[in-house]
Amino acid sequence: MRNLNEETITQAVLARNHDMKDSRLKEIMTSLVQHLHAFARETRLTEEEWAAGIQFLTEVGQTCTPTRQEFILLSDTLGLSTLVTAQNHRKPPGCTEATVFGPFYVDDAPDYALGDDVGNGMAGEPCFVSGQVRSITGEIVPGAKLEVWQADAEGFYDVQRDGGPAQGRGRLLADREGRFHFKSIVAESYPIPHDGPVGRMLDAMGRHPWRPAHLHFMVSAPGYETLVTHVFREGCQYLDSDAVFGVRSSLIADWVAHPAGRTPDGASSDTPFYTLDFDFILNPVGKETIA
Amino acid sequence: MRNLNEETITQAVLARNHDMKDSRLKEIMTSLVQHLHAFARETRLTEEEWAAGIQFLTEVGQTCTPTRQEFILLSDTLGLSTLVTAQNHRKPPGCTEATVFGPFYVDDAPDYALGDDVGNGMAGEPCFVSGQVRSITGEIVPGAKLEVWQADAEGFYDVQRDGGPAQGRGRLLADREGRFHFKSIVAESYPIPHDGPVGRMLDAMGRHPWRPAHLHFMVSAPGYETLVTHVFREGCQYLDSDAVFGVRSSLIADWVAHPAGRTPDGASSDTPFYTLDFDFILNPVGKETIA
Repeated sequence: MRNLNEETITQAVLARNHDMKDSRLKEIMTSLVQHLHAFARETRLTEEEWAAGIQFLTEVGQTCTPTRQEFILLSDTLGLSTLVTAQNHRKPPGCTEATVFGPFYVDDAPDYALGDDVGNGMAGEPCFVSGQVRSITGEIVPGAKLEVWQADAEGFYDVQRDGGPAQGRGRLLADREGRFHFKSIVAESYPIPHDGPVGRMLDAMGRHPWRPAHLHFMVSAPGYETLVTHVFREGCQYLDSDAVFGVRSSLIADWVAHPAGRTPDGASSDTPFYTLDFDFILNPVGKETIA
Repeated sequence: MRNLNEETITQAVLARNHDMKDSRLKEIMTSLVQHLHAFARETRLTEEEWAAGIQFLTEVGQTCTPTRQEFILLSDTLGLSTLVTAQNHRKPPGCTEATVFGPFYVDDAPDYALGDDVGNGMAGEPCFVSGQVRSITGEIVPGAKLEVWQADAEGFYDVQRDGGPAQGRGRLLADREGRFHFKSIVAESYPIPHDGPVGRMLDAMGRHPWRPAHLHFMVSAPGYETLVTHVFREGCQYLDSDAVFGVRSSLIADWVAHPAGRTPDGASSDTPFYTLDFDFILNPVGKETIA
């Protein structure tokens, strides 16, 4: 292994991996090295371009904070997240499809009762959300846990604003009939954080940073595959050009506009409001892989 | 672009890149997306593995400081650096071969006169280095600039120690005959920094972090391709398993051991010392590409 050149280097690296004990790690690293080298060969990558890549990845890492994950954004904008999500959630037709997790989930969101205002003061037009959780096999799923999160009318999640309370996110339990309802604000389209290296990359590529309006859900219940998905808003101009490639037709739903007046919770609103009704169809564990 | 799944996502991402104005960036991003997706498909990457990868890359970025470049280490240990160096420095046979740049070069190293002690107090056994810079076409290269850098006897470069003066690095000019000589310390093998994520990766892969003993050189002169290389020490146990895949047979040389006594600079040494004689053969600009 003393005469490494552009032809011999790949096999030399793979040979060094020969003694790896973890066979799955070996499989991953073998594929990674082969594709990384093939990329550099195929593009005849120059040293300046290599250095620019090193600098870019370094900045991506250094842009990450406890509330910002720039590498997830990078994965999202290159379509990797959608690919990984899709190949890990092959489900029977009719199940609610999964989509990208995104970087704004928080695992200690506040608990709410059905009917509560998950917006918790977040700026935006009122929206009343309801639906039911069922199994693809037809049964209702009583007491499913729903975690919901969304951006405000200006396109920011609560964690993107310094301090302040949890807003536009929460955990609820569906009732015995699998039904849920809560109040929040209407989803609006927003740009992914684009003041960092991923934003500069999109700009250089002539791509916009916008995501179509959506509401995030994670739905889980014992015996069922956990569903991480969004509901997208019909009519949004970015449905065909989501910056993170998350849209699936089956996840697009109507946010129905209503004039000021009586609201679904029995109160009344001085301003126009919206309603969204969307059911989630879960996949029983053990039926994940149908490919 | 609303029905993205594991089969359609790659073409969807490439289609989005259709309007990119910079044709070279388009070429690079097209290849990158194809190989990144092929890697994820081929390994059937799970969501947990994807998340571990995101976390790993984030740590690599956050380990970088003004004096530590963990992404270069990652590129080096995966053989990418050697590949990029090799494919950008195809030279006529007989030219001194290039090897990896490494992360420890500093561009404002002190200037020294021929014969000076570049070690500047660095711990290690004395070594007297000499040689000549010539062209592959036979001419001597008068006044070539040589930049040299190396680790100390404990395996650390000066920049890895807090504060302190520049040690084991410097810039010299060859004389009118292309000849150079300077004093330093003998090169010893050392581990690359392995207390960070790249070290953990090597450990998980069952690979050691050691580099064979070497002295770094950058040699430049008007009209010639700049040469970035190392001279490796014959007999070193890591010549066949360099953690960064940098060794080329033509770059291995004898560090000749001498007993205490008269040294090449006309002084005398109380302790044993070494000499290294190595000539650099440069490639005239315009002859870089012979492939």
